[in-house]
Amino acid sequence: MRFFDDTMITSHSDLGFAVSDLDRSSALREHADWQENAYKNDPATRFILLCKDTPVLAFDGALHALFDRQALEAFGHVRQSLFLGIENETPYFGIELDAAQFDDLKLREDLKLIDMRSIAMQGLFSPSLLSAIGTAKAMLHWHNRHRFCSNCGVESVMATSGWKRSCTGCKTDHFPRTDPVVIMLAVDGDRCLMGRGAAFPEGRYSCLAGFMEPGETIEDATRREILEETNIKTGKVRYLTAQPWPFPSSLMIGCMAEALSHDITIDPNELADARWFSRAEVKQILAGNHPDGITAPPKMAIANHIMQIFVDAG
Amino acid sequence: MRFFDDTMITSHSDLGFAVSDLDRSSALREHADWQENAYKNDPATRFILLCKDTPVLAFDGALHALFDRQALEAFGHVRQSLFLGIENETPYFGIELDAAQFDDLKLREDLKLIDMRSIAMQGLFSPSLLSAIGTAKAMLHWHNRHRFCSNCGVESVMATSGWKRSCTGCKTDHFPRTDPVVIMLAVDGDRCLMGRGAAFPEGRYSCLAGFMEPGETIEDATRREILEETNIKTGKVRYLTAQPWPFPSSLMIGCMAEALSHDITIDPNELADARWFSRAEVKQILAGNHPDGITAPPKMAIANHIMQIFVDAG
Repeated sequence: MRFFDDTMITSHSDLGFAVSDLDRSSALREHADWQENAYKNDPATRFILLCKDTPVLAFDGALHALFDRQALEAFGHVRQSLFLGIENETPYFGIELDAAQFDDLKLREDLKLIDMRSIAMQGLFSPSLLSAIGTAKAMLHWHNRHRFCSNCGVESVMATSGWKRSCTGCKTDHFPRTDPVVIMLAVDGDRCLMGRGAAFPEGRYSCLAGFMEPGETIEDATRREILEETNIKTGKVRYLTAQPWPFPSSLMIGCMAEALSHDITIDPNELADARWFSRAEVKQILAGNHPDGITAPPKMAIANHIMQIFVDAG
Repeated sequence: MRFFDDTMITSHSDLGFAVSDLDRSSALREHADWQENAYKNDPATRFILLCKDTPVLAFDGALHALFDRQALEAFGHVRQSLFLGIENETPYFGIELDAAQFDDLKLREDLKLIDMRSIAMQGLFSPSLLSAIGTAKAMLHWHNRHRFCSNCGVESVMATSGWKRSCTGCKTDHFPRTDPVVIMLAVDGDRCLMGRGAAFPEGRYSCLAGFMEPGETIEDATRREILEETNIKTGKVRYLTAQPWPFPSSLMIGCMAEALSHDITIDPNELADARWFSRAEVKQILAGNHPDGITAPPKMAIANHIMQIFVDAG
């Protein structure tokens, strides 16, 4: 069966937020009785806590992202909660604590508040638990930024265990937003095109990337982004792999594009620099021994993964 | 270069909304002077008109989707306009006419109001012009449903030539929404899994499909949708091609998934039926000569395209 042969390029477990054993159990989302029992009475249930977009972790020498019912109750008032799904017979809920608690929580010795990016970078949890925390963060952020109906301006309320908001005025239903982003290398034989943004750490180069727009295919968006940022024309585009990216709620779609031109002109509003790198150089960059000290994004980011795919194809 | 070899599966020109020669010229979006001149004074500029989500076409025996400045002015008040880009040195704007005009416009003999789906199905315009009309429809619909800030409930206003809305209260910027949808065949050797919704035309079967959720990869979403709708387990997933789908603003992501189980149990809330079809049957369905009268979605839809890819791989 040629669809599933070895020309496929698949995800690796070190790609952050991309590996999940969570069963989203969407059929249970409308079961209010099941939800209430799981939330209040099931001793197996675990809660993932965030406060002001930041995961709240228990600390007893080790870090723990999952709280049981008793531990949750000790925090007092919960701002909002949603049902994430079931993993290994454990129901997961995402919980947002009141922002007013933030400073107090930071002072507690039995807790650590660590931002999502650092948790992912440091590999503090299993790949699947990282994904569940990322999903909780993306969903809670969406609720916070969508408290009002975009259609009529009236307040909306959470419904379907957190997977929908319903307007209390015009009754429009609103569903969580996922923003597709294309992220890519343009490839010219044995070299590839990478750039750096003005805010990048010194020496850092990475894949180009940009948000998709209505009316575009993945392939057209890939070609447009490369052309806009570097004036390099590209032809064929190949999808490689995807990564959910909860900052706040993107889907990174990783691609390679076949370069059809060579002369770079950067858009200074988008990039500080862009240049061609040989496969040997990219290999050095990933290994951390490039002679000019050029560095790659961390392994948990899809840009690193795409660079590795380029090196491995040599 | 193995990334761009013949194992790639690429789009065909009969896939609706997926072929575009439009240069979105995003650098011009912030140039108010350029915009105003192109809109008011450039004789090359053309306008794509919609009223109540329906394309407005000029009719003189033939149908025309592009209006010049003089023809636009004859309609009087314009509700909103946005800059689409430049195609073959022709600036395109998307225009929404006042909904109050709808009934009068329908009566005019020099116009036809034809819904977007019919325009695509009937192949009334070139693939690239169809894409431009689809983009105009998706963008204008987004503006209409996002007149208020989801963050604070206050009115927002169009900015950046239509590619952004800015809140007049909390100043949050809002960008057009694109909803990724996975659409797929589960494949078990020489047969594939298709289903029919309760609202489908009689005899119609198609690919399964569903909206992606925050925190999912394309591959995980594909496996989840198949499992939810039919209880078929799948393993490897291969991306095939994508299609913008302006109803209202989706990105259809077409995939094949390798089936790992065989016994179908449908979710009656999602499907009226699902069954395995042999490659020979799918070929008959696409040719319109299946003995049981089973039919496929039209050629302009990605489901038809995915079925064809499955047949061609035999």
